[in-house]
Amino acid sequence: MNIRRLIEIHAYRGIRHRRNLPVRGQRTHTNARTRGDQASVLPTDSQKNTCFAMAKEKGVGEIEDYAMDLARHFVTGIGPVSAARVEVDEYQWERVSVAGEQHPHAFARASGEIRTTAVTVAGGEGAGGEPALRAWVVSGLKDLVLLKSTGSEFAGFLKDRYTTLAETDDRILATSLIARWRYQTWPPPPGWDEAYAQIRQILLERFATVHSRALQQTLWEMGRAVLEARDDVAEVRLSAPNRHHFLADLAPFGLDNPGEVFFAADRPYGLIQCAVLRDDAADPGPAWDSATAFA
Amino acid sequence: MNIRRLIEIHAYRGIRHRRNLPVRGQRTHTNARTRGDQASVLPTDSQKNTCFAMAKEKGVGEIEDYAMDLARHFVTGIGPVSAARVEVDEYQWERVSVAGEQHPHAFARASGEIRTTAVTVAGGEGAGGEPALRAWVVSGLKDLVLLKSTGSEFAGFLKDRYTTLAETDDRILATSLIARWRYQTWPPPPGWDEAYAQIRQILLERFATVHSRALQQTLWEMGRAVLEARDDVAEVRLSAPNRHHFLADLAPFGLDNPGEVFFAADRPYGLIQCAVLRDDAADPGPAWDSATAFA
Amino acid sequence: MNIRRLIEIHAYRGIRHRRNLPVRGQRTHTNARTRGDQASVLPTDSQKNTCFAMAKEKGVGEIEDYAMDLARHFVTGIGPVSAARVEVDEYQWERVSVAGEQHPHAFARASGEIRTTAVTVAGGEGAGGEPALRAWVVSGLKDLVLLKSTGSEFAGFLKDRYTTLAETDDRILATSLIARWRYQTWPPPPGWDEAYAQIRQILLERFATVHSRALQQTLWEMGRAVLEARDDVAEVRLSAPNRHHFLADLAPFGLDNPGEVFFAADRPYGLIQCAVLRDDAADPGPAWDSATAFA
Amino acid sequence: MNIRRLIEIHAYRGIRHRRNLPVRGQRTHTNARTRGDQASVLPTDSQKNTCFAMAKEKGVGEIEDYAMDLARHFVTGIGPVSAARVEVDEYQWERVSVAGEQHPHAFARASGEIRTTAVTVAGGEGAGGEPALRAWVVSGLKDLVLLKSTGSEFAGFLKDRYTTLAETDDRILATSLIARWRYQTWPPPPGWDEAYAQIRQILLERFATVHSRALQQTLWEMGRAVLEARDDVAEVRLSAPNRHHFLADLAPFGLDNPGEVFFAADRPYGLIQCAVLRDDAADPGPAWDSATAFA
Repeated sequence: MNIRRLIEIHAYRGIRHRRNLPVRGQRTHTNARTRGDQASVLPTDSQKNTCFAMAKEKGVGEIEDYAMDLARHFVTGIGPVSAARVEVDEYQWERVSVAGEQHPHAFARASGEIRTTAVTVAGGEGAGGEPALRAWVVSGLKDLVLLKSTGSEFAGFLKDRYTTLAETDDRILATSLIARWRYQTWPPPPGWDEAYAQIRQILLERFATVHSRALQQTLWEMGRAVLEARDDVAEVRLSAPNRHHFLADLAPFGLDNPGEVFFAADRPYGLIQCAVLRDDAADPGPAWDSATAFA
Repeated sequence: MNIRRLIEIHAYRGIRHRRNLPVRGQRTHTNARTRGDQASVLPTDSQKNTCFAMAKEKGVGEIEDYAMDLARHFVTGIGPVSAARVEVDEYQWERVSVAGEQHPHAFARASGEIRTTAVTVAGGEGAGGEPALRAWVVSGLKDLVLLKSTGSEFAGFLKDRYTTLAETDDRILATSLIARWRYQTWPPPPGWDEAYAQIRQILLERFATVHSRALQQTLWEMGRAVLEARDDVAEVRLSAPNRHHFLADLAPFGLDNPGEVFFAADRPYGLIQCAVLRDDAADPGPAWDSATAFA
Repeated sequence: MNIRRLIEIHAYRGIRHRRNLPVRGQRTHTNARTRGDQASVLPTDSQKNTCFAMAKEKGVGEIEDYAMDLARHFVTGIGPVSAARVEVDEYQWERVSVAGEQHPHAFARASGEIRTTAVTVAGGEGAGGEPALRAWVVSGLKDLVLLKSTGSEFAGFLKDRYTTLAETDDRILATSLIARWRYQTWPPPPGWDEAYAQIRQILLERFATVHSRALQQTLWEMGRAVLEARDDVAEVRLSAPNRHHFLADLAPFGLDNPGEVFFAADRPYGLIQCAVLRDDAADPGPAWDSATAFA
Repeated sequence: MNIRRLIEIHAYRGIRHRRNLPVRGQRTHTNARTRGDQASVLPTDSQKNTCFAMAKEKGVGEIEDYAMDLARHFVTGIGPVSAARVEVDEYQWERVSVAGEQHPHAFARASGEIRTTAVTVAGGEGAGGEPALRAWVVSGLKDLVLLKSTGSEFAGFLKDRYTTLAETDDRILATSLIARWRYQTWPPPPGWDEAYAQIRQILLERFATVHSRALQQTLWEMGRAVLEARDDVAEVRLSAPNRHHFLADLAPFGLDNPGEVFFAADRPYGLIQCAVLRDDAADPGPAWDSATAFA
């Protein structure tokens, strides 16, 4: 068996069951919650089985297609389901090289970086009242650890009574990037994989080449560059903890330290976030809802 | 030194800087992002210092008060800041008992459970156009691990083509609960600590005493009980992974297993979420926004 | 069903298969490794099944007894097995209190603290050449988070060229303790549970009451007190990372900070370890071997 | 600033202080432990400073050299120190590619794999009674995630009463490898980096090309191949959890599943370990001692 890609599914549980009809104008809730009646509830276990069976029946090519197939299945195939959200994570593997050749069935994990998608599908009505599906696609990546050893400054900032931070014109800039982008049309030409590769490369190149005056500005430039390059992307969201690297103070030992020895601090840190939205972006609808963001 | 409570601050970075005035009708962005100009940006480091200094100046009593003081400080004291969100986690400690007496300065971590609050403050205008602050308070707990060894069933659910799960009238129900509740008036009588203790106890009691026909229904009953007990709570949100415990199959060894030996499965699992909202609840505003929910 | 205790088994895989007879005086290895012949290998999966079946057949009372039963079973019941090591972790649960009464089947995780045991059993010969089993028992606890808010100093230490640390006569002392003790006779009177409770209490009391001149000295006093109290314990091993809490520097803001506001630093930290061994301690044999310590 | 490699130091605390002279024939302990006297104790903080200063003074080339320099410094430069152990982890980074060119100062984390070394140095006497240092070097890697999608079987194993596992001649074999090898002479020709790269490649190639009859046998072949290729390696230790991938049962849905859809199980799993030791290997001394293996 020669696998093309390995996909690990983390959050498959995102179907929303239709509410009961309102009775006497009151706000109603599903019987499942209020009376424990499960007759309209598709068990988690069945959803899991569906993920496996669909992988076999349709195959798993690009994760966006797989997620879309699953979400559509739940909405169109299971009566009480009005909407579904499927999130898929893809881990990166590379073939083991043996005597300079790629091995046919041995793999090593390539990177901690994870490719993601979140597809939401909801039932509804078309212009003529006929049943119609609406869908939203947010793709992205997470756990991409980036570092610039120079080309980063932080100066000219607001000083208040509690400011002790020294201004610097040369620091290490490091983060573990989460990036997500919302497509407003799809499939992206020439395909999901190519779009992913292009956007990832744009993010990396902007991170590398923008002289950073602050992480905020770097993120802005990264997101803007994606919108400029791709009309089919409505919005980019970037979330990046500032992984501080402080210069070790070697002066007590009679040593200077011109940007050579740093220590990485874990806490506290700043979490910088940036959303870059096209002026004429399509409405996001439920695209950004997510299981982990609920509570 | 005899400490009363130990508080660990995780996400203090939540201030929002005012945007520049629009120029030529275009959508504008802060100078910080688009041009890297930091003149209106209060550094993370200064915010951190403020957290420490405020803890000394005002003391840390109940975490909601501490978060409110901090958020107000940023909005009223730092010109370019239009809104601030402060999230505080409180860890549980208990005194070490020595010869039956509580020791004055030795502590052991009491539980993995964490008490939380998220306070949002925004500048604005009062009815007469005068400057006025608005605020939102969401308190809660997380990492509360709960288990019922019986009193839980799951049956009568929808069956589709992919359903293989057997119905059961007696199973283990286990979860790691995240609960958050939004106050619509405050401070809660007779105080934040008492309100926390009461709500926590209601959640525990309902979990224990409701015969569970599904985790969804149990969560609904837990949230409803809180709203019934406290008029000052507008909404309760509960997030609970279904930590499955499957009966070990001992039949191949000639043993029966009437609910005695289980194994805990890690993946895949269902994440069940429930929001219980009062009919006349105040508008949530930005109360539920959170740093981790962004991307 | 009313459970008395919940036990989670983490490292059940510790059996050692007999080596083949030596051939031509060479060092030999098992066929399993060198030729992939599995005829003498009991699969992991069978070992797992045995853990479940034994829990049903004999019940699970004290974890030391359960581990001993399992280890003996593998050595005496499975021909090719010459030795077995079973490690069991026990999580702490407490009953949910409802209207002041302990609920019969609802539980909350009580603490992050984990009770541990590691039992090793090996086949061998008695004085008269008859088959005989030898056994070793190491019990303990881990993830016990402790903190003293005063009663701790660190001064008078060696200064070298790279020493910048200031001496202090009042600091916070905090750690996450791993403690393990080796029994030289057993069962301990009046039982495993009582011995565990007594030793845990001694460790806590000594931590609380010893004025700490260094974490090293505190650990030594904790271990020594256990040996003084119990003749059946041959050795105590304590491992404790120094979870530094540094005084926040509030002087730049015109504030003093007499031991009130600290920040917790994650890295780097010192890991302090201490073994306290009775002069006439029995030989440890393989008691301290562990799966995680291998590589 | 253009960094050549990024090194993160995790466990620098491994110095052993000389014991006091025995008094009245009793077993004695250091004053630090028994009386809290710190006069012979070099603080953790000073050791940390030394790590930073040494990085500046000598530079950091290959991690084995850096660890050796540090360990020697503690033993020869600090009077009361009799032995030192330095463990260094090196994370993998690769340059960001911009327009096909390697960027001079922007990096992305390349892999979760971590290169390790543990160097132990002890004072002692030479043949003529003169002071002499002894040293031990164990290098390795960890968190190398490997998977074979075929070429792995598990059959012909011992069956006992509790065995239900089916034999298979085609399964997925996956693990997260920890490998460590002990040099008996050094530096290895032509250098530490080249030796590391060669050994890593041997491990990967053997994993890929050996038809696996069991993980035990695969590990044995991997370790043996290293010993055959390098005379300067005395011993190889491999630790590998069996990350089970079970075939999803699609038969209930009328689908066959000829090795296409698997699910990854987290618990329980087998941890397989293998030490391959040269017949004439030098004595390991304290080479395998480690901070985490203590308790």
